[in-house]
Amino acid sequence: MSISDNSSDISLDTKKHSFSHIMAAAVLEMFPEAKFGVGPVIENGCFYDFILPRTLIPEDLELIEEKIKEILYRPLLFKRQELGLEEAVVHFRDKGQDLKVELLMDLKEKGTTKMDKEEKEIFDEGEVQVVSLYRLVDNNTGEILFEDLCKGPHVETMTEINGEKNSENKSIGFKLDKFSGSYWRGDQERGIDMQRIYALVFDNDEELGEFLFQRNEAKKRDHRVVGKDMKLFTISNLVGAGLPLMQPRGMVIRKLVEDYLWQIHEKKGYQRVWTPHIAKVDLYETSGHAAKFGDELFRVQGKEDEFILKPMNCPHHMQIYADNQFSYRDLPIRYFEPTTVYRDEKSGQLSGLTRVRSITQDDGHLFCLVDQIEEEVVKIVEAIKEFYATMSMDKEFWVSLSLRGEDHSKYLGEDKIWHQGEQALENVCRDLELPYKKVEGEAAFYGPKLDFVFKDAINREWQLSTIQLDFVLPERFDLSYINESGDKERPVVIHRAISGSLERFLGVMIEHFGGRFPLWLAPVQVKILTVNNKEEVLEYVNKVKLILEDLELNQPLKHNRIRSFVDDRDESLGRKIREAEVEKIPVIVIIGPKDLEDEMVSVRTQNGEQKMRLNQLKEFILNNTSL
Amino acid sequence: MSISDNSSDISLDTKKHSFSHIMAAAVLEMFPEAKFGVGPVIENGCFYDFILPRTLIPEDLELIEEKIKEILYRPLLFKRQELGLEEAVVHFRDKGQDLKVELLMDLKEKGTTKMDKEEKEIFDEGEVQVVSLYRLVDNNTGEILFEDLCKGPHVETMTEINGEKNSENKSIGFKLDKFSGSYWRGDQERGIDMQRIYALVFDNDEELGEFLFQRNEAKKRDHRVVGKDMKLFTISNLVGAGLPLMQPRGMVIRKLVEDYLWQIHEKKGYQRVWTPHIAKVDLYETSGHAAKFGDELFRVQGKEDEFILKPMNCPHHMQIYADNQFSYRDLPIRYFEPTTVYRDEKSGQLSGLTRVRSITQDDGHLFCLVDQIEEEVVKIVEAIKEFYATMSMDKEFWVSLSLRGEDHSKYLGEDKIWHQGEQALENVCRDLELPYKKVEGEAAFYGPKLDFVFKDAINREWQLSTIQLDFVLPERFDLSYINESGDKERPVVIHRAISGSLERFLGVMIEHFGGRFPLWLAPVQVKILTVNNKEEVLEYVNKVKLILEDLELNQPLKHNRIRSFVDDRDESLGRKIREAEVEKIPVIVIIGPKDLEDEMVSVRTQNGEQKMRLNQLKEFILNNTSL
Repeated sequence: MSISDNSSDISLDTKKHSFSHIMAAAVLEMFPEAKFGVGPVIENGCFYDFILPRTLIPEDLELIEEKIKEILYRPLLFKRQELGLEEAVVHFRDKGQDLKVELLMDLKEKGTTKMDKEEKEIFDEGEVQVVSLYRLVDNNTGEILFEDLCKGPHVETMTEINGEKNSENKSIGFKLDKFSGSYWRGDQERGIDMQRIYALVFDNDEELGEFLFQRNEAKKRDHRVVGKDMKLFTISNLVGAGLPLMQPRGMVIRKLVEDYLWQIHEKKGYQRVWTPHIAKVDLYETSGHAAKFGDELFRVQGKEDEFILKPMNCPHHMQIYADNQFSYRDLPIRYFEPTTVYRDEKSGQLSGLTRVRSITQDDGHLFCLVDQIEEEVVKIVEAIKEFYATMSMDKEFWVSLSLRGEDHSKYLGEDKIWHQGEQALENVCRDLELPYKKVEGEAAFYGPKLDFVFKDAINREWQLSTIQLDFVLPERFDLSYINESGDKERPVVIHRAISGSLERFLGVMIEHFGGRFPLWLAPVQVKILTVNNKEEVLEYVNKVKLILEDLELNQPLKHNRIRSFVDDRDESLGRKIREAEVEKIPVIVIIGPKDLEDEMVSVRTQNGEQKMRLNQLKEFILNNTSL
Repeated sequence: MSISDNSSDISLDTKKHSFSHIMAAAVLEMFPEAKFGVGPVIENGCFYDFILPRTLIPEDLELIEEKIKEILYRPLLFKRQELGLEEAVVHFRDKGQDLKVELLMDLKEKGTTKMDKEEKEIFDEGEVQVVSLYRLVDNNTGEILFEDLCKGPHVETMTEINGEKNSENKSIGFKLDKFSGSYWRGDQERGIDMQRIYALVFDNDEELGEFLFQRNEAKKRDHRVVGKDMKLFTISNLVGAGLPLMQPRGMVIRKLVEDYLWQIHEKKGYQRVWTPHIAKVDLYETSGHAAKFGDELFRVQGKEDEFILKPMNCPHHMQIYADNQFSYRDLPIRYFEPTTVYRDEKSGQLSGLTRVRSITQDDGHLFCLVDQIEEEVVKIVEAIKEFYATMSMDKEFWVSLSLRGEDHSKYLGEDKIWHQGEQALENVCRDLELPYKKVEGEAAFYGPKLDFVFKDAINREWQLSTIQLDFVLPERFDLSYINESGDKERPVVIHRAISGSLERFLGVMIEHFGGRFPLWLAPVQVKILTVNNKEEVLEYVNKVKLILEDLELNQPLKHNRIRSFVDDRDESLGRKIREAEVEKIPVIVIIGPKDLEDEMVSVRTQNGEQKMRLNQLKEFILNNTSL
């Protein structure tokens, strides 16, 4: 059996489930008094709940893990047996497994499963007369290591998961991850204390290793932690959850991203507009957003009018368009506005920068003829590709092309324009050779769309950019342009966002770069450290600063002046260097008394430290923009 | 009697009041059946209400004006007479002046004035037994031209206001301004229709002329009209009153102003921050703004929390500061954030861009030691002077220095710090030789301040910049820095705004420049007009465009790319030129077929039209930035 056969024959879930029985068997060998709750499959593994004679300590996990490794290579079989309900009660009562008895008695009383969390694990749904149990049996001695009420399925022999020694098959990769307290059936009132052991289970060690690496990386890169260490943003209890405030250093990055987005858009003929953050309820009733967003809307009570804190910018931009009477010659009209919209998410769903209530969209709307859709979408895709190439996220991405599919009933707008619009989007995907998947029935009710999914440095996927055609809003706001015959016609609207939201994108970028931003984005690019603070050293520092002040980067953003900072505190050089490294400063310039005579500096980057002449510093920075 | 004596002897209000009697006399000569209401003094003149036998037509005003001019030079005297109430009733009944009788009867009945609008004009306050009337009497013939119930005072002879022919004294300057319908005692129900004539009255013709010029200029420059003509902003009924949306061209100006402000601030060590537009009520209760702003606050109901749409940024910036532990070495900390605050003004008080509900402040806060106040305020004043010099508004300005004055009871904070703060502000005023006025008792409760009042091109005053010390907020938010001894101390906060509000400032700028923005601010700087659209002409246009695309201005804002637009419609050149002039385009480049051969262009500015070589165009624009 080839590796791939092995993997495809038995589902990972079956392996995880069998593993949870093996883990329980190992626990039983260590604690013969153990009583058993349930042991379900979860994402990345499984857990099992036990009542144990003492509280677990971290070292127990290692012991249990050793035991599991040994059990895995015993000649064990999973054997299924079916029992009548009454028979099963007697069986588990004899074994002293009160919790199993409770589950069976409950079932007997009700005559049918109501499928609570525990029941789902072990019983089939519906009216139950007969239950199944699985035994882990030693094929040589007939000894029963462990048995459990369980609906299965399981592997049959250990060789299906242990990869057989000296064969080419691979063993599952597993690791006992952690333990925690839990309550029987989650019922804190009854207070039956259990101990839960979590295991990670993968098809093989490589996949486990990859998962652990990625999890560890994600933890190290957690933007909530890195953002705090680097002093990028602040969550304030007085301001509220999901409403992050940008510290100066976070704002440097955010403004650079915004300026860069504008640079890309300006080249492509966009015009900036500005709209207020509230509007009368009437605006959103006309647009349909009042109904769509429901209780996610922040409602604002004024003295005379009722307002809504804008959840979207589209209706506002429609008003800017509508105050003109454009001709076909003026189209496409392209508006760009990076601005904050507000949505009232529940506080439990909020987290750092990635789940927020204040969402600053790099929003834009285009108004064009049907014939112009394709050309305009091409330009937007170019902008998206340029942006994500700059962010080193363009290596692997894919595009979801959402279409109406067969059933047209839930979509508004004429068939003809839908057909043209869908065709235009697919043409773009094909012409630009985008890796796209068609998803039928997933279009918005107002039009088809393209969603862009990018992978970060640790291979996590993020849905970030979107391009959406809209055949409905122009109708609702009675938008028009004058065509060649002098008659009014409806334009098509295109919604588009490149980064999606500046808050979320900053969160993604912090984790993608692990806080080590490329030179052009680093809040402080150069830190000058002094070994001592003698007058002549400080004079030399000023000389270095003057050189840096004159320096600007022009890629990818034009006129991006170098941001430098002098650390001339009376601290040891070692401490100053450590602090600069925690702050992830790309270029650290160290100045000691000996450097003065020859006009030298020591420059420390992630690639090491080197001495150079002061007049080489400028060149060095310009040649190392990938730092 | 010197001119100045004349002016100072008799108040302008007395002159206006006498003028209203003279105007009534003129009306009486034209309409002997006229009945008289009241004729009060108002800003810039007076009005009089009449019941007339027919509706006035515009030509009547000219006739009345002629008559007034003639009456002014008759030998007339104002004579006062006192009459008992009963006597006065009989007198005016005999004259058929029913309205005067009504006022007298009312007074007789009540025994005292309750001082409604009409009574205030003619009776003294309090219990009234005797009333006064003024007669306009011909000193030669004894003829009574007009008499009116009136408490006075009036001039005695016409020479006090007609400047006497052939003397050096100046006549009052007057003009009948307009007429409109009104109701007796403002009571629409009673329906006694009256006709009101408004007069402008000034000390002399020069002052009248200046007023008329300024009013006419203000009307021509009205930002609501110019903003519409130039397509700078939009007021939408669906979005709501006082919530202007920026059209692309308005946004060009607004962004340039914002970028320029940031350029000024960045040089002076400010850091940008960003804060959300809502915060929990708790934040504003801590800061004291919840109580201070009362029903001007927009309250936002969330699912879980109650929020407020921020009316100020200060409490937010305090939170950004508070999330750091700064040392005395880090101070001053300077935050800059151009962001929109919201205040719920009544819709009747809203107008264009100058009275709005969405106010985008170029806000900033500094945190410093007491000893640093003076130096920091100097830097802010430098920023203000640089900004308003660029806007050509720095010729005449003055500064109001608001201090506590004698009574300290309404101010919070220690005496010592108040003394230091007030001293620092006054030192700055003196050292920088600012034209300042001390205003005692006008400080904010939290600290002393400087307010800057600038004059626009038509001499109207605008209070725009402000610098305010705050000794209270740092206390309320428990802000601190670590001093040299390692102990915590409170910083001083400085609030500052340069333009005040980007909306209001744009409104002021539109009127100051009359829409004719200086080159660096003009939304479209160059418009290229084609005489015809032959292929070779359009090719030449592209050549011109390429030259312009390469061109950027670097004063006052760096890297300000030239914004050009091609008008190649099939319209007559005359029409294209007229439209470009309505749009107030600084540089109009006209391209005809004859220009191609010699690579010439015609360039039209407000200074006239001239032919030049295409390769001179760049130089011409760079040398004419004051256009």
